[in-house]
Amino acid sequence: MSDRIWNFGAGPGTLPEPVLKAAQRDIWNVAGSGIGIMEHSHRGKVFDAVIADAERKCRDLAGISDDYHVLFLQGGASTQFAMVPMNFLPEGGTADYLVTGVWSEKAVKEAKLVGTVHEAASGKAGKFLAIPPADAIRYSASPAYVHLTTNNTIYGTQWRAEPAVPPGVPLVADTSSDMYSRPIDVSRYGLIYAGAQKNLGPSGVVLVIIRKDLVERGAQGLPTMLQYRTHAEAGSLYNTPPTFGIYVMGEVFRWIGDMGGLAGMAGRNAEKARVVYDFLDQSRFFRGTVEAESRSLMNVCFRAPSEDLEKRFVAEATKAGLEGLKGHRSAGGMRASIYNAMPVEGCRALVEFMRRFERENA
Amino acid sequence: MSDRIWNFGAGPGTLPEPVLKAAQRDIWNVAGSGIGIMEHSHRGKVFDAVIADAERKCRDLAGISDDYHVLFLQGGASTQFAMVPMNFLPEGGTADYLVTGVWSEKAVKEAKLVGTVHEAASGKAGKFLAIPPADAIRYSASPAYVHLTTNNTIYGTQWRAEPAVPPGVPLVADTSSDMYSRPIDVSRYGLIYAGAQKNLGPSGVVLVIIRKDLVERGAQGLPTMLQYRTHAEAGSLYNTPPTFGIYVMGEVFRWIGDMGGLAGMAGRNAEKARVVYDFLDQSRFFRGTVEAESRSLMNVCFRAPSEDLEKRFVAEATKAGLEGLKGHRSAGGMRASIYNAMPVEGCRALVEFMRRFERENA
Repeated sequence: MSDRIWNFGAGPGTLPEPVLKAAQRDIWNVAGSGIGIMEHSHRGKVFDAVIADAERKCRDLAGISDDYHVLFLQGGASTQFAMVPMNFLPEGGTADYLVTGVWSEKAVKEAKLVGTVHEAASGKAGKFLAIPPADAIRYSASPAYVHLTTNNTIYGTQWRAEPAVPPGVPLVADTSSDMYSRPIDVSRYGLIYAGAQKNLGPSGVVLVIIRKDLVERGAQGLPTMLQYRTHAEAGSLYNTPPTFGIYVMGEVFRWIGDMGGLAGMAGRNAEKARVVYDFLDQSRFFRGTVEAESRSLMNVCFRAPSEDLEKRFVAEATKAGLEGLKGHRSAGGMRASIYNAMPVEGCRALVEFMRRFERENA
Repeated sequence: MSDRIWNFGAGPGTLPEPVLKAAQRDIWNVAGSGIGIMEHSHRGKVFDAVIADAERKCRDLAGISDDYHVLFLQGGASTQFAMVPMNFLPEGGTADYLVTGVWSEKAVKEAKLVGTVHEAASGKAGKFLAIPPADAIRYSASPAYVHLTTNNTIYGTQWRAEPAVPPGVPLVADTSSDMYSRPIDVSRYGLIYAGAQKNLGPSGVVLVIIRKDLVERGAQGLPTMLQYRTHAEAGSLYNTPPTFGIYVMGEVFRWIGDMGGLAGMAGRNAEKARVVYDFLDQSRFFRGTVEAESRSLMNVCFRAPSEDLEKRFVAEATKAGLEGLKGHRSAGGMRASIYNAMPVEGCRALVEFMRRFERENA
């Protein structure tokens, strides 16, 4: 029996156990160097191999071409919210945002500090419980870029596919909560960023995949750390990077490869989500909160008949070793985050617990 | 026998072995929660206790008063180079910088993007081999703040004490390479920042200690992540912080406490430096490069009679299990970084090796 429980937290989230075991070993002595992974110079041979391997595995998983830089930065998606407009929203220009929740709104707020924002679509009127349909999107005349949030942790919604964008306009995506949970055609994007702490690794490192011509076009005269070109030219080593986080991310990429790559992840994640949503669809007690075609495969949001029952559900689930099921404070109810590292057994254990709870409380 | 070697690297540097052992354990399951430290929500009870404990230990070690915030941020000292002037150098104002090496120069470069910089003293003419004496410092009429770098890793120089500053002018210090290596009177500073990766923890987290009235005075309208007030108001939890790095830092603070606190560290570090400098002072082969009164207790820089001998020294030292002794490429020669976690036995092993090398090559 393991001493670990099922962790349905929304992030930082559960990590693959083989990755944890590798980290336990390599914290003491990595690659037979006699030095732990946290203690190696970022300019030494051992870390060189670690970051090169992480980048190569990242590229291999999604078939990322040489037209893109793969960068490992700090400051989370929240810093990307600011860096994107600072680098790519020129004076007098307009950036288009597809607004699907609080995280999109935060991105909009930072862009407005820099220039003009056009909300090309917003799910706000519908309380963000659905992804805007294609025919609801109205782009501005000549957007500098189009920004979207691919998965919305708070509401449990997810874009099924990239929206069409006007020709030549870079698509910028915050994929923090579904990166590498399924195949992604990077060539459709100008810039992809993802905080690591849901599907890719620990918090404190953000993966940035950016088209090289965009890097060159970026604004000049910004603080050095806020220019993509600084990090692109230095291969993420302009200053000391979060070396341990990059190491863990490399180990997660290895694990994803071992699990069948992005297609393997997609199959596994679809199966996991099916287990939970199928149960919700037939339950007369619990109900999913999101329109079927907008449902997230990463965050399953659901309600019970009353807030009292929801409180009891979360408390009893915690006692039963099912942690992190309380919904976001702004949404209420329950949320099961079932990121890459959550096995299908965890979803089955959740459904079994829900079935019992329903029987006892309906 | 341990499978670990002596790591004299300049950073990320060696960490205390009890901290590594705690991390190995807690990566799998921390505090009996059934969830590893990297996998806990930053808004949950377990991490709440971790960050509160890290802050409390940080405060206790230096007796930091409630007039100061203690923050755990991302982006390293390099991001602080930009945040300091963005927040505290007003339009038309002048910031004074004490320039003691490349890192000070990088801080100056970022400040110049914001406003006027006055170099109140510079060691550049002397190749940064000495800390400017008090009578060489010329402040501007009314500086917004005075900035210094307390320890200079590349040259191996260190301020013995804070320079006097004009009354009421905040002193801002980059203490990345000597933080908590000795007692520090925080009340003499407006703002102290330190990348963790030398004395305090892994890379990817930067400790910021900032006077509360300064936070309030900071510029408005900056990107949210670049305002100190954002992080001060949210207790470092505005966005997902580098949770694992904060955890490790807390464990390092615990270890420093166990070792006698900052006074204990200072005694240990003085003893370690004495072992190496005393050997250098009597050697007819090796020579220290820095003026005696400017010598760093953290980074000991030295030369051998020729570059060929230096190359051989570094190569043979590496073979003998003494790693990271090559000097910075801009300074040449050798450098032994002997941060907090390096035990005196490591310094003795280094001197023993140097003595043998001298005997064989003099």
